[in-house]
Amino acid sequence: VTTLEDPDTPFAVVDRARMERNIGRLGMRLDKLGVPLRLHVKTAKSLEVAERVHPTGPGPITVSTLAEAEYFADAGYTDIVYAVGIEPHKLARVLGLRRRGVDLQVLLDSTAQAEAVADASARTGEPIPALVEIDCDGHRAGIRADDPALLVIGRTLVDGGAELRGVLDHAGESYYADTPETQRQAAQEERDAVVRAARRLQEAGLSCPTVSVGSTPTAHAATDLTGVTEVRAGNYVFFDLVMAGIGVCAIDDLALSVVVTVIGHRPDKGWILTDGGWMATSRDRGTAVQKVDQGYGVVTDLSGRVLPDLLMSGASQEHGTLSLRTGSTQDLPELPVGTRVRILPNHACATAAQYAEYRVISGDTVSDAPEIEATWRRHNGW
Amino acid sequence: VTTLEDPDTPFAVVDRARMERNIGRLGMRLDKLGVPLRLHVKTAKSLEVAERVHPTGPGPITVSTLAEAEYFADAGYTDIVYAVGIEPHKLARVLGLRRRGVDLQVLLDSTAQAEAVADASARTGEPIPALVEIDCDGHRAGIRADDPALLVIGRTLVDGGAELRGVLDHAGESYYADTPETQRQAAQEERDAVVRAARRLQEAGLSCPTVSVGSTPTAHAATDLTGVTEVRAGNYVFFDLVMAGIGVCAIDDLALSVVVTVIGHRPDKGWILTDGGWMATSRDRGTAVQKVDQGYGVVTDLSGRVLPDLLMSGASQEHGTLSLRTGSTQDLPELPVGTRVRILPNHACATAAQYAEYRVISGDTVSDAPEIEATWRRHNGW
Repeated sequence: VTTLEDPDTPFAVVDRARMERNIGRLGMRLDKLGVPLRLHVKTAKSLEVAERVHPTGPGPITVSTLAEAEYFADAGYTDIVYAVGIEPHKLARVLGLRRRGVDLQVLLDSTAQAEAVADASARTGEPIPALVEIDCDGHRAGIRADDPALLVIGRTLVDGGAELRGVLDHAGESYYADTPETQRQAAQEERDAVVRAARRLQEAGLSCPTVSVGSTPTAHAATDLTGVTEVRAGNYVFFDLVMAGIGVCAIDDLALSVVVTVIGHRPDKGWILTDGGWMATSRDRGTAVQKVDQGYGVVTDLSGRVLPDLLMSGASQEHGTLSLRTGSTQDLPELPVGTRVRILPNHACATAAQYAEYRVISGDTVSDAPEIEATWRRHNGW
Repeated sequence: VTTLEDPDTPFAVVDRARMERNIGRLGMRLDKLGVPLRLHVKTAKSLEVAERVHPTGPGPITVSTLAEAEYFADAGYTDIVYAVGIEPHKLARVLGLRRRGVDLQVLLDSTAQAEAVADASARTGEPIPALVEIDCDGHRAGIRADDPALLVIGRTLVDGGAELRGVLDHAGESYYADTPETQRQAAQEERDAVVRAARRLQEAGLSCPTVSVGSTPTAHAATDLTGVTEVRAGNYVFFDLVMAGIGVCAIDDLALSVVVTVIGHRPDKGWILTDGGWMATSRDRGTAVQKVDQGYGVVTDLSGRVLPDLLMSGASQEHGTLSLRTGSTQDLPELPVGTRVRILPNHACATAAQYAEYRVISGDTVSDAPEIEATWRRHNGW
């Protein structure tokens, strides 16, 4: 039997029971709302994780890179949205995937991109389906739902030989909405923006079959998704301290952690040193802007029980520093050299990206040395 | 001919001419100081980069993971210091490498570790050589040079059947020393601490052949290394904005960059969006605590010319935001969709770690589309 005491540290662990609970929770929500999920695979980048979301076989997914699209296509996924604005140079790979029978849809928010997609479609006689990115909160890319460019882009696609598949938005600002009310409002605005954009296209005689929304916070907050045809979410399979910090989940829902080992002590400084630095957790410090700054992560014992007030407070490349939260009245726990602990990360997408694989524990029972039941690969890169 | 216009973005680029200049510069310094270099391979994790430092064949190296040790051992490197405090569970792999003829030395700073190393040595009859980590600036691990534990650790190793190989320190605080004078002082303290520790061991009748110092800033600032037997440095092969920010190098010395492509514009916000987010640069924001905050990186055109005042100011997973530095009087440059630019990173070690390989350009001549002359692999993981 291999347990979390066995592989050399650091390594990434997935608690399957927690992950399945997270998957079940959103699944039930969306069932009630009557809108299907298009899993975003950018967080886990794992076929086995996607299999838990789509247990009856490949379903609709969202990708953040063409490498993900190719990897999932190899495993039989044929309904894929590439949800980063298309860069014309990448259309060759997009066409390559489409020729393999993958309904890969691209995203864009400018006439320049629409012209490039139309040109590639016309040149090859293969209409590439595109979604127009709508901006609902000024967070990142996209055009506003009432922007005159929307119809120009739509017509450029259709007239040029491409396919206008619909509209898509992402309430990126919802990651900073830290009350149920502001999250619900973000979900409402995310829905309203794409529905409005879709209506404008339809009123102009352009077809708009897909109306896509999504972010982990809004997917959990939405109460009305009338007019929406799909919800995208990915982080929720693992969740993380940033999501816990805004109340979308509890600490006990965090399904991804990193196992590290104590390699030293600095009692003069109140530090416990480990062999897990920022290479093991990433440099992500998402909770630094939240109400409670969790440093590089919350520390649990190997069984997953939180060690009160102990944080991973510092990191160099392969060294981590554990210390008590400022103002804590706890004593620094006794963790001799060789003791293993787990770090719950700020940002699951960033921490998972530091690894090529996950060790999987069932998570069904509490154990001092949880058994590793499987190893799941991740597919990194571009 | 393949150029930086060809591979899909994002990807990492090494400018060989700059790298060789950096390697030559430190080589000349250390030649003058009469102390050999033990290259730290943790930054580049590349055999080809190490080959430029050790052109006549494998030389002494420092590693931050056993995966690096194993990778370089496979390529013929036999003189390796593993410069992260040893975790007893890893001694099995240490012994495995030693049995392959690799003189792998471990690092430690506690009697608990010394006992574990001595036990493994006695049990196998194979004395494992260990360096005692000395703390010269309170930065991270190590014991002070005058700590009574030094002699206890030394005797535990020797009496227990291991080998005391020497002492090692690292002036980690020198990364925050932003004047030539404070850097020189950090180098002096780094030298003094290990030399003092070595003398104490020798006076106690313990042998101490190795006296090892190192950090990129101190390696470039040291003026006297009497008593030191080797200098470790790794970041300097690439350098980065953090090193430029404290004056150890110029922006023109930065040999690592990331090529990204413009995918959109938000003129209302003064943003240019690219397909390179934090996955492409890492989340490292080392310059945030420096005099000049460079965001996620300084932007150059594809030839390497800095675009005045343009920074990568924001990042999500696969989106980067370029905008002008606060207070800039420049106009936002015209960068149409499809334009490629390069990002000079905060922290080369962290950015390089996001990639499995480097595209290499000669760097000898300025070109609008520099030719890719080679692809070099990196070895990530643990």
